[in-house]
Amino acid sequence: MSERSYAILGTGALGGFYGAKLQKAGLDVHFLLNSDYEYVSKSGLVIESKDGDFTLTQVNAYNDVEKMPQCDVVVIALKTTQNHLLPHMLLPVVRDDGVVLVLQNGLAVEEEVAFVGNVSIIGGLCFLCSNKVGAGYIRHLDYGQITLGEYANGYDPTGITQKMRQIADDLKSAGISMELAEDLLLARWKKLVWNIPYNGLSVVLNARTDELMFDVHTRQLVEQLMYEVAAGAKSCERIITDSFIQTMLEYTVKMKPYRTSMKIDYDERRQMEVEAIFGNPLRKALAVGVDLPRISCIYQQLKFLDEMTRVGNRENKVK
Amino acid sequence: MSERSYAILGTGALGGFYGAKLQKAGLDVHFLLNSDYEYVSKSGLVIESKDGDFTLTQVNAYNDVEKMPQCDVVVIALKTTQNHLLPHMLLPVVRDDGVVLVLQNGLAVEEEVAFVGNVSIIGGLCFLCSNKVGAGYIRHLDYGQITLGEYANGYDPTGITQKMRQIADDLKSAGISMELAEDLLLARWKKLVWNIPYNGLSVVLNARTDELMFDVHTRQLVEQLMYEVAAGAKSCERIITDSFIQTMLEYTVKMKPYRTSMKIDYDERRQMEVEAIFGNPLRKALAVGVDLPRISCIYQQLKFLDEMTRVGNRENKVK
Repeated sequence: MSERSYAILGTGALGGFYGAKLQKAGLDVHFLLNSDYEYVSKSGLVIESKDGDFTLTQVNAYNDVEKMPQCDVVVIALKTTQNHLLPHMLLPVVRDDGVVLVLQNGLAVEEEVAFVGNVSIIGGLCFLCSNKVGAGYIRHLDYGQITLGEYANGYDPTGITQKMRQIADDLKSAGISMELAEDLLLARWKKLVWNIPYNGLSVVLNARTDELMFDVHTRQLVEQLMYEVAAGAKSCERIITDSFIQTMLEYTVKMKPYRTSMKIDYDERRQMEVEAIFGNPLRKALAVGVDLPRISCIYQQLKFLDEMTRVGNRENKVK
Repeated sequence: MSERSYAILGTGALGGFYGAKLQKAGLDVHFLLNSDYEYVSKSGLVIESKDGDFTLTQVNAYNDVEKMPQCDVVVIALKTTQNHLLPHMLLPVVRDDGVVLVLQNGLAVEEEVAFVGNVSIIGGLCFLCSNKVGAGYIRHLDYGQITLGEYANGYDPTGITQKMRQIADDLKSAGISMELAEDLLLARWKKLVWNIPYNGLSVVLNARTDELMFDVHTRQLVEQLMYEVAAGAKSCERIITDSFIQTMLEYTVKMKPYRTSMKIDYDERRQMEVEAIFGNPLRKALAVGVDLPRISCIYQQLKFLDEMTRVGNRENKVK
């Protein structure tokens, strides 16, 4: 049994799911909550999962990081749109020589926690379909695998580190399928090959993945966007092969029709993770003089739509 | 008084307006109609206009080009989405040595009528806000100016020709403000500087011109699209200056909030003029090896939305 303690910052569809799995496996887990704090303190967490439902009647719930114990592993499971809160949230809860595990979408999110001294920063790419369907109630629909990679200054590849292995072992003991990546930045760019075209176009065109793949024009645009992601990766000296792109296209054609996470956020009128998924990759490439015009076009469209949701003036318009 | 006779192919918001103005000025005008034929045959045309309302109680109405007299000037006032009908429609109605006047949006539309031998082809760019609000009932909201340019094989500049002057005189006698362009292709590219960004983004983002200009991201995307139009023009050896682009931007900021013609078509679930306004310019540039990635991105998005409207399956979706 691992002696490592875990803090889950953000007990939603993702943090709630992985945190509950870890506690169920016997680990010491501490959950930070916001709106669900009262309810979960009293009633615990319910996980409805294709791998088996379970209930945790008692969890360590907090509504203030100052009240949490310092933990060995602090899991950042907030949406990246909340990352401005991290400087305030992280320092009280992370143990000296501990690990910050960033389970977030997009690129360069590890750089946003690099202000914390004397910790290891590990990035995790989650392939998870889950929703929070009520207070303390999470529905796990499919997948769940996490790919881990350790962050070093400037995203230099670290290889497979001891810390990565330890955390992977904890998560594996909780029944999570794990992969280890020698090069976190490459892993993040590879995930963007899927996330950029499908998240972006699903929102802008109000479309599911199957619709985007069926139409010859969006099918071509998806592929062009994937090649621009590869050009972005190349600007960071990371190589994404043609065959990887072709595999992603074939994989998506075979998938069940899927509503992307950004589309769900947009439909629920939540702020979208536009900066993490689009803005940061664009800026990385632009910093070395590489323009990604189609990604930039989608980025600007998403920023507009995000702003229109925020000011909430879409209802008053002539449709 | 001009002795020239006019055939109006397409008696809608545009053809109905200009045709009625010509008849009111005393010219011999023949109107081709489709769904409104019965009504207009009996009741004529009503023009409600900011320049003065008027009614034509009697018009020469036809529902078949074969029944029309051959005319000196045949005005193509159909949407470009109907241009597949032109080979069948044009030949019976155009007089030998006559003029085909193409009052359509986009680029390369003159090439689609170049199959007609021994006629002059003149392109007209209309700056007109008008709507057909009922059978034979047209509401003219604003503007109305036409810029004319003559088409020569390969869009070689023709200068100001005698035929252009004659037609401009007829239209001026009907109270239409006229400009003459020495280079039709340049004039068409210049109109695209406005039409491409605002028509495209208004549909994709469900936005008015003022909203696109107010948001910093779409404001930038509009400008980038305008510069890509200029790059397209340059691929055809036509120069659009920076100051022209800046003038278009300033002009649009000062305009009253405006719903573009493509947005109106989309909202009314009519086919959009995507090929004339986006597809043809893209193909012109690509033919000489010039890629316009942002315009291409919007083109593919519009094609998808157009197709989704056509199959009419937008209602059945989770919003």
